[in-house]
Amino acid sequence: MSVGTDAGLLAPTWAGTPVAAEVTDEAWLQAMLDAEVALARAQHAVGLTPAAAVEAIASVAHADRLDLVALAHAARAAANPVVALVSAFTEVVAARDVAAAEYVHRGSTSQDILDSAAMLIARRVLGLIAADLERTGAALAALADTHRHTVLAGRTLAQHAVPTTLGLKAAGWLQLVADALARVRTVASALPAQLGGAAGTLAAYREYAALDGGAGEGGVELLAPFAEALGLAEPVLPWHTVRTPIAELGAVLQLVTGALGKFALDVQTLSRTEIGEVSEPAAAGRGASSAMPQKRNPALATLIVAAARQVPAHALVLAQCMLAEDERPAGAWHAEWQPLREALRLAGGATHTAVELAEGLIVHPERMLANLELTGGAIVTERLTVALAPVLGKVRAKKLLTAASAEAADTGRTIGEVLSGHPEVTARFTPDQLSELLDPARYTGAADALVDRALRGYGHLGDTTDGGGIR
Amino acid sequence: MSVGTDAGLLAPTWAGTPVAAEVTDEAWLQAMLDAEVALARAQHAVGLTPAAAVEAIASVAHADRLDLVALAHAARAAANPVVALVSAFTEVVAARDVAAAEYVHRGSTSQDILDSAAMLIARRVLGLIAADLERTGAALAALADTHRHTVLAGRTLAQHAVPTTLGLKAAGWLQLVADALARVRTVASALPAQLGGAAGTLAAYREYAALDGGAGEGGVELLAPFAEALGLAEPVLPWHTVRTPIAELGAVLQLVTGALGKFALDVQTLSRTEIGEVSEPAAAGRGASSAMPQKRNPALATLIVAAARQVPAHALVLAQCMLAEDERPAGAWHAEWQPLREALRLAGGATHTAVELAEGLIVHPERMLANLELTGGAIVTERLTVALAPVLGKVRAKKLLTAASAEAADTGRTIGEVLSGHPEVTARFTPDQLSELLDPARYTGAADALVDRALRGYGHLGDTTDGGGIR
Amino acid sequence: MSVGTDAGLLAPTWAGTPVAAEVTDEAWLQAMLDAEVALARAQHAVGLTPAAAVEAIASVAHADRLDLVALAHAARAAANPVVALVSAFTEVVAARDVAAAEYVHRGSTSQDILDSAAMLIARRVLGLIAADLERTGAALAALADTHRHTVLAGRTLAQHAVPTTLGLKAAGWLQLVADALARVRTVASALPAQLGGAAGTLAAYREYAALDGGAGEGGVELLAPFAEALGLAEPVLPWHTVRTPIAELGAVLQLVTGALGKFALDVQTLSRTEIGEVSEPAAAGRGASSAMPQKRNPALATLIVAAARQVPAHALVLAQCMLAEDERPAGAWHAEWQPLREALRLAGGATHTAVELAEGLIVHPERMLANLELTGGAIVTERLTVALAPVLGKVRAKKLLTAASAEAADTGRTIGEVLSGHPEVTARFTPDQLSELLDPARYTGAADALVDRALRGYGHLGDTTDGGGIR
Amino acid sequence: MSVGTDAGLLAPTWAGTPVAAEVTDEAWLQAMLDAEVALARAQHAVGLTPAAAVEAIASVAHADRLDLVALAHAARAAANPVVALVSAFTEVVAARDVAAAEYVHRGSTSQDILDSAAMLIARRVLGLIAADLERTGAALAALADTHRHTVLAGRTLAQHAVPTTLGLKAAGWLQLVADALARVRTVASALPAQLGGAAGTLAAYREYAALDGGAGEGGVELLAPFAEALGLAEPVLPWHTVRTPIAELGAVLQLVTGALGKFALDVQTLSRTEIGEVSEPAAAGRGASSAMPQKRNPALATLIVAAARQVPAHALVLAQCMLAEDERPAGAWHAEWQPLREALRLAGGATHTAVELAEGLIVHPERMLANLELTGGAIVTERLTVALAPVLGKVRAKKLLTAASAEAADTGRTIGEVLSGHPEVTARFTPDQLSELLDPARYTGAADALVDRALRGYGHLGDTTDGGGIR
Repeated sequence: MSVGTDAGLLAPTWAGTPVAAEVTDEAWLQAMLDAEVALARAQHAVGLTPAAAVEAIASVAHADRLDLVALAHAARAAANPVVALVSAFTEVVAARDVAAAEYVHRGSTSQDILDSAAMLIARRVLGLIAADLERTGAALAALADTHRHTVLAGRTLAQHAVPTTLGLKAAGWLQLVADALARVRTVASALPAQLGGAAGTLAAYREYAALDGGAGEGGVELLAPFAEALGLAEPVLPWHTVRTPIAELGAVLQLVTGALGKFALDVQTLSRTEIGEVSEPAAAGRGASSAMPQKRNPALATLIVAAARQVPAHALVLAQCMLAEDERPAGAWHAEWQPLREALRLAGGATHTAVELAEGLIVHPERMLANLELTGGAIVTERLTVALAPVLGKVRAKKLLTAASAEAADTGRTIGEVLSGHPEVTARFTPDQLSELLDPARYTGAADALVDRALRGYGHLGDTTDGGGIR
Repeated sequence: MSVGTDAGLLAPTWAGTPVAAEVTDEAWLQAMLDAEVALARAQHAVGLTPAAAVEAIASVAHADRLDLVALAHAARAAANPVVALVSAFTEVVAARDVAAAEYVHRGSTSQDILDSAAMLIARRVLGLIAADLERTGAALAALADTHRHTVLAGRTLAQHAVPTTLGLKAAGWLQLVADALARVRTVASALPAQLGGAAGTLAAYREYAALDGGAGEGGVELLAPFAEALGLAEPVLPWHTVRTPIAELGAVLQLVTGALGKFALDVQTLSRTEIGEVSEPAAAGRGASSAMPQKRNPALATLIVAAARQVPAHALVLAQCMLAEDERPAGAWHAEWQPLREALRLAGGATHTAVELAEGLIVHPERMLANLELTGGAIVTERLTVALAPVLGKVRAKKLLTAASAEAADTGRTIGEVLSGHPEVTARFTPDQLSELLDPARYTGAADALVDRALRGYGHLGDTTDGGGIR
Repeated sequence: MSVGTDAGLLAPTWAGTPVAAEVTDEAWLQAMLDAEVALARAQHAVGLTPAAAVEAIASVAHADRLDLVALAHAARAAANPVVALVSAFTEVVAARDVAAAEYVHRGSTSQDILDSAAMLIARRVLGLIAADLERTGAALAALADTHRHTVLAGRTLAQHAVPTTLGLKAAGWLQLVADALARVRTVASALPAQLGGAAGTLAAYREYAALDGGAGEGGVELLAPFAEALGLAEPVLPWHTVRTPIAELGAVLQLVTGALGKFALDVQTLSRTEIGEVSEPAAAGRGASSAMPQKRNPALATLIVAAARQVPAHALVLAQCMLAEDERPAGAWHAEWQPLREALRLAGGATHTAVELAEGLIVHPERMLANLELTGGAIVTERLTVALAPVLGKVRAKKLLTAASAEAADTGRTIGEVLSGHPEVTARFTPDQLSELLDPARYTGAADALVDRALRGYGHLGDTTDGGGIR
Repeated sequence: MSVGTDAGLLAPTWAGTPVAAEVTDEAWLQAMLDAEVALARAQHAVGLTPAAAVEAIASVAHADRLDLVALAHAARAAANPVVALVSAFTEVVAARDVAAAEYVHRGSTSQDILDSAAMLIARRVLGLIAADLERTGAALAALADTHRHTVLAGRTLAQHAVPTTLGLKAAGWLQLVADALARVRTVASALPAQLGGAAGTLAAYREYAALDGGAGEGGVELLAPFAEALGLAEPVLPWHTVRTPIAELGAVLQLVTGALGKFALDVQTLSRTEIGEVSEPAAAGRGASSAMPQKRNPALATLIVAAARQVPAHALVLAQCMLAEDERPAGAWHAEWQPLREALRLAGGATHTAVELAEGLIVHPERMLANLELTGGAIVTERLTVALAPVLGKVRAKKLLTAASAEAADTGRTIGEVLSGHPEVTARFTPDQLSELLDPARYTGAADALVDRALRGYGHLGDTTDGGGIR
């Protein structure tokens, strides 16, 4: 039977990036074995499973001792891979130490193992993501700081609006990354181990404990050492059908790709041929086309956007899996695994990609200035409205500027030229004053102060606003 | 032109519940006016807009002074309702105080008003939701406590698994509610006011401030008083395209309906005709059918499940709206409003409904006991496996019990009868011991201790586990 | 109790458009009454219900005879509005003709009425959509034909790629509209009436038929006249939980908004300030901003894109509702109504908007030409590669052009200038030949022939390709 | 760098089933090579590429000649795998025949190759799905026919409603399968080849054609032979951003899993321990638990439901990818590949699983009868209402039966016993008549006739309704 290679041919966002190896079938299999080992350790910690058995179990708990493909196919019989895994792994342990085999999966159930494995995988991936978000955030903070006075056209509804600064744009990207990072850390630290037994009562764990002469309340005392052995949080309850952790994972992963996706989308727009205000970092072959020699596509941004368009759908499936009937459901749980893996690797790949994009982004301030001139001053008509409001009233001032803008657009003259013919304007402003009012670089509002707020919030600046700040 | 009534005819989950009134077109219109008033107040607070103008603006900021339908239709011209609203509201203010009209929407932009209004609405609805989650949680905590020894069949993959208690089931529902409540509170307290001006630089606010001779940095100083006037959190930055708050709202609302949906789904299952272990609280006409006189449908649970199936889709749209290009996007923002409203009222209606369901749930312990007997002891074969493991080894013991279960199912005998013929069993256990092992009520594991953990986590119990505890 | 107005304040895509009135609560209520009348007519047609009773029922079947708000609130008791509706409507009929009241909802069940009503509503909305798609298609066909020689930059991955024509772009938009229209017609013509009775066996219909001495097989013979009375398709079976029609509706509505959304997205891009190749049709106030007097936002396109971002989520909920347990489900059905309404009115509003956009789109060919020059000939390097391939081989030719493009970009020279210094090029081409090769207008490939294919496929051209064709 | 095995460990729905091999990275790579070969063949067919070159290209177009992992990783540079593939494949061809290498990917672009490959893959998978839907349909048709008189409780909102037949239930499942099959066939036959060149104008194809001295219009004439070489439909236009085929694929795949999911959900419900009316076909290990020896979980149904919960999310991403800007988009296209693969294999695996479930479903009519008795006749109160309507009027009759049902439920008596005490009932019916009215088996309405309609629609019966018909 033909089995494929999980190389990510259709998923360049993560193919070959560090996250890829963390979520392969092999990695999941290993994580399940890790959970089995942790269970043995926990049972030993409370005085049950003997040290020798733990040692034997741990010593053979390597994914490459098992036939991954056979296990995957066998998983159809039980609708999950753990039943076959336990059977195969028990044989592997028995081959080493017959007595130890009795202590494999002792008192356990499939979902304890698979959920715990999923949390292990998730924790590792969130770790990668957090580290890359930090690097991305640092790069964006530096960008915001460096370009706090780099003026460009603010755009709304795809049209020039009023001027802004690249610093403020980058501050917005940074804020998104900071929000995502905070949530990633919160969720990562709360990922719980799963331990409940067949229907969440811990009954068989307790029964074996009694058999082994263990002390303790029977079951509950296993929760802490099991979680500790896995480096996961101790759950209040078994959460076989209390799927908050799964829904939260989906939510945080879509926050990550949403945050990065916004950044990437802006890079794509700003690097449009007609706009040309930023470029992606160059690299051999980067952004090449199979057809067009001149092409330098925003490939990094595209990889990120592609991920950002997919992850919310996976998050949705994970959120819906909260609707899980009974003590363990017939389908809702089973529908989680693949979307979780996909969301993890898409988010991990996107974050890895974002580091490169943020650290290497090339800025073209001269194109920004050139574009600011494109509308002949229309980009500051808001400012002129304010300036004329005391004379004309806000409503009339806006009406005048609307008409002037239209006239300028129709005749190809600048706003300044059109306004020079308006007695209401010339009565109020000298040509120099008008010229100053028409200068986009002088109408960036509180952009600078806002950059400081974002940098301070992110810890990039100290508690001063001198801008020469602490970095 | 025909305009409809927003009565919720197709949405009985929220029709006529308190949330309904909070999210009507009228409520949104009023919230936008509230934002305009808050802006005037904030500008006054920093020494700009005169008190008289604020007073005039506030005195006429009532939704019923405007033609809602005309505004809604006019909204097509600008693709949002605020442009027309500002124009109409300015006239209303001018009719009262011409000078004050100059201070309406001063320096502002559509998105500042609409986003702030959305947060006001969201905060009110999250308040309703939090209160109802608290009541639901209290009822579930009481249920868990009361029924900590009420045994019923634990069910996994739609089949009897091992016994559990209703207390533990209720503890799981409680945990979900507690998780959702914690997130609701976190998100509710962080809902930010929106203030950025045309492209997020606060430029026109600053420009008017300069004009009015105001002190301050120009713009940034407005953030705190504006947020305060609205009772919202102060944003670090304008978040026109930093949509974390929107994505988080979607995520928390789907957590709420997911949590309640799990509870409702279990109620539906347990109230199936063949199972009959719980009933919904009775009320005149509740659960009636247009066809069948005998029907008493689980109507409350159905209302909740219906909501839980819809909200994740709205949350997905909200998450995707993070992909918002430029300083303000052409579509992504506009796609948020209706999904946000729908998610808010579905979650609000579901929570309102859950209170009634949790407080009134009727439990039938006798049916639980009867159902436990249905499989002739098969529900405790896990326990027997453990008991026989020391003699036979775990693998052989399980094999023996699998065969015995199949034999019992095929022959209609009980597991006890079948096992009585097995020398391996009779050699190990006296009939009395076997009988005790076969008693479902004695195989509930750590259910009781787990209930305590959940109740203590929720604050229902004090820090003791005597069960007679603090309530 | 406060009830809102369904004015569409948050949904300018459809507010005030024809579809709005078709899906109000009032319209749904009327459609349910229409279904009750159709049932009476069908029962009369097979010799059961007397003509006088039908007449009495039909004469009072007007939504305004019922208290919509009370019905909506009462719907919570049964989790659907029909139970209360039947009760209230029976009283209305009885007030006119006591005997006729016996024939109201005779043998029926809630879902027969509500599903049939939904199909009535859907059919009307699909009718509006089809008509508007036809107008949109006609406008796009004309655009494609008119601009078959209007050259502009083809753009891929946000970068200039090779030249194309506006005719071909419009042909692509047309093709999408044609695809959507074909599916709308197919789905609209297949929308089935719903008739099944309490659990889809038609049992009570049959029982009443026997009682009334009607001939026929009892139930099945009602299907055709009932469907006919509603102008809907006759179902093979009751489809209470055979939800293909619902899933198909969702799929076709997302196809409509997806098709129009692509068109709108392109309009937004092409009308960017820096690109400026098309503009939306002007109208007073259209595209205005509350802040910036110069703004002329692509408001129509934004309304369409906003819809296109929402409808797939509704379609997803509808598709998921196929997972409906038993003869009639407890939640899946109830989750359909509101998403169906939202999807219908978003698609209807988007289509209405698209007519205006397509019919009024303003084209700026001079900006297209100017933009084609922006890259100094880089847009035709693919062509040069082909031209040089016979001399250099394809791979070396591409490499040379890649280097030349980079050199041109770095130095600000044109591709022509750079290539004039390459002996490999000058050896092959005279300056005139090179100049011709560098003319974007001469590198539009088969655009013209492709436009013909699309127009012919749409029926805009006859079966000739002379281009002066049949319009 | 660690690369995983695509064994489906987390996706037992398709692991090891025939669809698995059709969508591996290897299969996609091969399909891309198939597209390259088809392009060469098409160009030869119109008199361009020499036969020897086609032969050379075809002879080495085997996926195992390329380094899959290297290609996958290299795909990050261009954001798609084709650029690297063309480069590598050109070298492979050159190694065999230098001259032939000039004809590789001649005039083409990445998306032509990848989209055509995707359609090849989709066509193969839809072929598998159609064949398995046919088998499933045949099994369900036989089930419907065989069990047309097998009575069981119709259930609505999780409660007994009125009786129905297993035949009618199966007819509903069949109808869903028939609907899905019809759509699969329609979509499969329309899957188009993709050919457009860099920006959809076919320009480079045309340019090479001119160079090679080919006749024809330059480009358009390639469409038919290219499509034919692939066995795909000829497109009207290049559809790089006319994504109807992709959206339709998503829609049809969710229709498939939705249809099968409904069937599987019903199997899960009916096989609940308390209901026990059907069982899944037994197989060694099938439905086993890692904990509980007695377990026989509905594993096949669970595999199907798990798929049905995931596919709509993939379909949503595919539908949203219609929003693809420009001639080729920067992200929307790239987000399609993985969801398409996942949806294909989930649907393929679910259909493969459904065959086994439908062909092997075990029916327990005796449990159905026993369950019908559970409510002491309440299941036929609808019938009694009809019977009493002539005496009491419909409304009073329903009220009487509602009261009687409640009384029966409260007292544990049967409906018959309760009614025997009602003079209004005894005056109307003899005990024998009442007993007959209370027999569930006599109240199955038109179930039998409806089964015939479904079977005839599916072609299982001929055009007669005698039921002994043509099978």
